[in-house]
Amino acid sequence: MSDAQPVTLQDIQDAAAQIKGVAHRTPVLRSRTLDELVGAQVFVKCENLQRIGAFKFRGAYNAVSRLSAEQLARGVAAYSSGNHAQAVALAARELGTTAVILMPEDTPRSKLEATAGYGAEIVTYDRYTGNRTAMGEALAAERGLALVPPYEHPHVIAGQGTAALELLEEVGELDTLVVPVGGGGLIAGSAVAAKGLQPGIRVIGVEPEEGDDTKRSLEAGRRVSIPVPRTIADGQAADIPGELTFSVNRRLVDGIALVSDDQIRDAMRFAFERLKTVVEPSGATALAALLSHRTALDPAPRRIGIVLSGGNISAQRFAELLGD
Amino acid sequence: MSDAQPVTLQDIQDAAAQIKGVAHRTPVLRSRTLDELVGAQVFVKCENLQRIGAFKFRGAYNAVSRLSAEQLARGVAAYSSGNHAQAVALAARELGTTAVILMPEDTPRSKLEATAGYGAEIVTYDRYTGNRTAMGEALAAERGLALVPPYEHPHVIAGQGTAALELLEEVGELDTLVVPVGGGGLIAGSAVAAKGLQPGIRVIGVEPEEGDDTKRSLEAGRRVSIPVPRTIADGQAADIPGELTFSVNRRLVDGIALVSDDQIRDAMRFAFERLKTVVEPSGATALAALLSHRTALDPAPRRIGIVLSGGNISAQRFAELLGD
Repeated sequence: MSDAQPVTLQDIQDAAAQIKGVAHRTPVLRSRTLDELVGAQVFVKCENLQRIGAFKFRGAYNAVSRLSAEQLARGVAAYSSGNHAQAVALAARELGTTAVILMPEDTPRSKLEATAGYGAEIVTYDRYTGNRTAMGEALAAERGLALVPPYEHPHVIAGQGTAALELLEEVGELDTLVVPVGGGGLIAGSAVAAKGLQPGIRVIGVEPEEGDDTKRSLEAGRRVSIPVPRTIADGQAADIPGELTFSVNRRLVDGIALVSDDQIRDAMRFAFERLKTVVEPSGATALAALLSHRTALDPAPRRIGIVLSGGNISAQRFAELLGD
Repeated sequence: MSDAQPVTLQDIQDAAAQIKGVAHRTPVLRSRTLDELVGAQVFVKCENLQRIGAFKFRGAYNAVSRLSAEQLARGVAAYSSGNHAQAVALAARELGTTAVILMPEDTPRSKLEATAGYGAEIVTYDRYTGNRTAMGEALAAERGLALVPPYEHPHVIAGQGTAALELLEEVGELDTLVVPVGGGGLIAGSAVAAKGLQPGIRVIGVEPEEGDDTKRSLEAGRRVSIPVPRTIADGQAADIPGELTFSVNRRLVDGIALVSDDQIRDAMRFAFERLKTVVEPSGATALAALLSHRTALDPAPRRIGIVLSGGNISAQRFAELLGD
């Protein structure tokens, strides 16, 4: 049956070999305080310490590295205002090719600069009048560039799955794995890796309360669209699951927990004050779910893995969110 | 000659054995961005990830663990409003004894609670009318407790030196080691360890501009007292070097760099945004020196070690310091 699956454990193992020595093998953090609060052993996979500050580099590098020499000679493109932009820019640089990134013209300057800093060409557009998908495709076609999607691609999903693969290889058996859900690429890859290695593991996704498109879709058994969510977790502001990611997640994900913006803030504060580590709002949602409703995730957990998926937030923005 | 020294490399190696499995062997962080900015390979020893969030646990545990069974049955005492309070409280708990900590009554509630959370009894005093040294000594005498000083003790200095010992064992030869200076215990232990293992290494201390008592003292060749400094680096607000620590530092420290509060803020921001790690003001001064005047530290550095000495700062306080 696994031949029919878009992404297999073998694909993730291949991706792990592909990114080895380029992506970081991120540390797994332990905290006595967290264990005591949760009443379980918690293993925290620190993708906020990944290159470009988020798991996105894994998928982007895996995808770009599979392109033909001919395609690499022409270059790649992506549209993103977030971590995927930096991930594709850095992957392109590492692989000796060029990247063009389409970004909204009101993207924070720090993100524009970070992306340009990796050598990418930035093309901006007006997010209120432009259709980024159409513009991205037109740009790629015009210049002969390969478009690297943020989650709707087997190589991207396989790359994202390497974080869970590393975690399970390092810590062994887990009862439950808790992972943030945006477009669904990270959890799809994580679920394939986790259930491939440990068939009995429960895989729980976490969405912001307002951005519960995957939860609704899993309940409906089909992709459900919601209004564009308002949440501080900007990396999870998806309004509909990806087609490819949903085809994986509907089969492998055991449930979705929802967290409020206040619960996300509390998790960011906990990470800062107790774990001494920086997580952006989207990166903190698995921790928020664990701290806010642990028993709903798993009534009798003994060993839980979570992913801190990103840490790209300015000190200024952090101060605005948590200042009082 | 080393018989005449209050702390030797062997003392630090003994301390390392004593704290093994109780204190964390903290990670050494690398950053391509930092290396590029500084123009050298930088090895960052993360004592902000030590137990209680600062290097202080090393010295406190080493000192308390050397007490007699009889003394441990009676208990220990310390006076501190900062990380030493939590360090002694946790060391006492780990060693099955009790701690009484004398703290100013206006100590932030979070620090009082953290110290009490490790099982210590807190005794508060009015910092404007009380003399903490006299009160601490009276309290210890009255109750038969062993007073654990924050830096003026060979076991404390030896314990603090284990951070540098671990760093050098892990990364090998360094040209320069840069360490924050408050009372002088961390740098004294670090200098003994570093010069014991690598006689050619340069050891540079860092003080806040207003709190340059050790710099002045080294220049004068004797302990010089300054007005109590006003600085955001509250862990380095010493007004005179310790007698014991200065006797070590005058012999082994090659120089002192000074950093302003703004340079400390910039370093905290850099640690937050680029290293994704949380450092308190005093914990960030070695990084601040490196980022602000690297060439003054070492004109041709190739491999530099620095210590991030602590990460105990609330999200609220961080926001106040860096919010705008």
